[in-house]
Amino acid sequence: MDLSTLVNRQIRLAQRPKGLPGPECWQRTEEPVSAPQEGGVLFQNLALSLDPAMRGWMNEGKSYIPPVEIGAVMRAGGIGRVIASANPGFAVGDLVSGGSGVQDYCLVPGDQVKRTGLVKIDPRMGSITQWLNVLGMPGMTGYWGLMDIGQPKAGETVVVSGAAGAVGQTVGQIAKIKGCRVVGIAGGPEKCNWVVQELGFDACIDYKSGSVKDGLKQHCPNGVDIYFDNVGGEILDAVLARINRKARIIICGAISQYNNTDGMVGPKNYLSLLVNRARMEGMVVFDYAPRYLEAIVEMAGYLKDGRMKSKEDVVRGTVDDFPATLLKLFRGENFGKLVLQLAD
Amino acid sequence: MDLSTLVNRQIRLAQRPKGLPGPECWQRTEEPVSAPQEGGVLFQNLALSLDPAMRGWMNEGKSYIPPVEIGAVMRAGGIGRVIASANPGFAVGDLVSGGSGVQDYCLVPGDQVKRTGLVKIDPRMGSITQWLNVLGMPGMTGYWGLMDIGQPKAGETVVVSGAAGAVGQTVGQIAKIKGCRVVGIAGGPEKCNWVVQELGFDACIDYKSGSVKDGLKQHCPNGVDIYFDNVGGEILDAVLARINRKARIIICGAISQYNNTDGMVGPKNYLSLLVNRARMEGMVVFDYAPRYLEAIVEMAGYLKDGRMKSKEDVVRGTVDDFPATLLKLFRGENFGKLVLQLAD
Repeated sequence: MDLSTLVNRQIRLAQRPKGLPGPECWQRTEEPVSAPQEGGVLFQNLALSLDPAMRGWMNEGKSYIPPVEIGAVMRAGGIGRVIASANPGFAVGDLVSGGSGVQDYCLVPGDQVKRTGLVKIDPRMGSITQWLNVLGMPGMTGYWGLMDIGQPKAGETVVVSGAAGAVGQTVGQIAKIKGCRVVGIAGGPEKCNWVVQELGFDACIDYKSGSVKDGLKQHCPNGVDIYFDNVGGEILDAVLARINRKARIIICGAISQYNNTDGMVGPKNYLSLLVNRARMEGMVVFDYAPRYLEAIVEMAGYLKDGRMKSKEDVVRGTVDDFPATLLKLFRGENFGKLVLQLAD
Repeated sequence: MDLSTLVNRQIRLAQRPKGLPGPECWQRTEEPVSAPQEGGVLFQNLALSLDPAMRGWMNEGKSYIPPVEIGAVMRAGGIGRVIASANPGFAVGDLVSGGSGVQDYCLVPGDQVKRTGLVKIDPRMGSITQWLNVLGMPGMTGYWGLMDIGQPKAGETVVVSGAAGAVGQTVGQIAKIKGCRVVGIAGGPEKCNWVVQELGFDACIDYKSGSVKDGLKQHCPNGVDIYFDNVGGEILDAVLARINRKARIIICGAISQYNNTDGMVGPKNYLSLLVNRARMEGMVVFDYAPRYLEAIVEMAGYLKDGRMKSKEDVVRGTVDDFPATLLKLFRGENFGKLVLQLAD
């Protein structure tokens, strides 16, 4: 391939957002594409993963990974196809999962291949979009958060917020497979019906119509043993009021709070942890990297035998569609794992 | 003893408080004293334990134990001397620890002796007030919360709020004995000096003069591995901002919040749990009842050999002094474990 004809369109962080990230936060640039040097790999981005965590990466300050620097290409995981390789582990045409960035092409220098977690993926185990969903970071997050922090036992009641989202669909389906009662929380009847009818959740509470508190009372008659929290805010408080003794709350995210301009709101019912000898614990998926393959193999099997389904909300477009598409997440408009597909 | 000459003065809950419990919450009654029936024990209260948890017991609604009913004698743990017994396990003159109630005499029916945890205590292991402090519920709370939930390792940094209080002094001293760096948080220079100079804490932050945040920065240069929280509120948030990876936060109480009339405030920095893969876990001391003796034996040894000290704030008086004395707790006026001593 003649790389000199290629133009790499990129979306860079122009300024840190206050509240929702508007167009002023982004800068569009173009660069030529250069060939990989010894050990390096060049791939074309086929699909980018759009995640709530991106909002956190845009903030200044200490977190579980460094913030995206002003002027840097926006960080994004993605699936790509290798178009040039100076690394014996990767051949032209291979499908890879890696730290794509919001751009058309990603050049990974030799010393960064391992560090950034560039790996080949097997298209027979799942589609490109499934590799960003159940078989990707959200799936790993849901699987390991539930299994390692939550430690579900058959017969327990598991509640998961963002139930129709990328992490939520994995959590709920795995919990069902492990023999739990599963109650989702999602926005709108379409998502709620889908997680019940298609994914087999026992119930799903529509937080947009009616009270989550009442829904929990109705659908969790034996209380809540595990809560997988993707949203924070009032929903976290409502679940805290219904937890059982020795309950485990997995803190995975707090999408309801990320764009609050007047500061985070903490869970006012947190003393329910005391009364119930319960635990609230945070998790970061990267810690489980050495064990990703276990979960991928298990879940690819479930996808194949139909015990597990996945849903992606695929927006087809270019990197220029990234800023607007990202906002769908924070408005709860995506239905399933949000993916920006750039090429086939 | 002629029981018919005795009058049992009692303080009963007249109404549930809003905010600080004022005199309108209490009712003073007198009753004759009757002899114990088969299996029962009658003891005279020598000293009552006054604890922040009492405020919670006065509220309506589900908690780790039922609320004190309106019209019932106020619940209180205490140390007493048996004055009549129909139980072969207890002899007149024995010192006992049990569910005394705020009254002069406590009659425990035969079927309640086990259920209420009435036990003989050995005055050679500690004084009456120490049996309400390090060797009593606060000591058990501090010991088991730190050891079982906190799981301290030598070299780790342990922070404890309410450091000069009953639970805090146990937590800090045990953590020192286990080889940790210990930083207390307390109100006023007198308490802070005492925990450093007398109890051997490495430092103590005076939350009444200056910022807890700055104090933590100064005295926890390697971050915080374990935080034993007795206070909640802004101090919990300040510590959350300084925790290390895999930190453990023991939620034992939230005295800063108990009398809030406009509702609890949750920890707005709770997402630090996520970033740091940390855990916040509640504990209730009663769960450790089968293991109390282990801790009592260990700590009585430390008291004897001088590795541990204890401080009680002993108010001498009658049950009529209970309402005003209790308020000392919520104003932070007690220095050490608050005890109302009724007799010798």
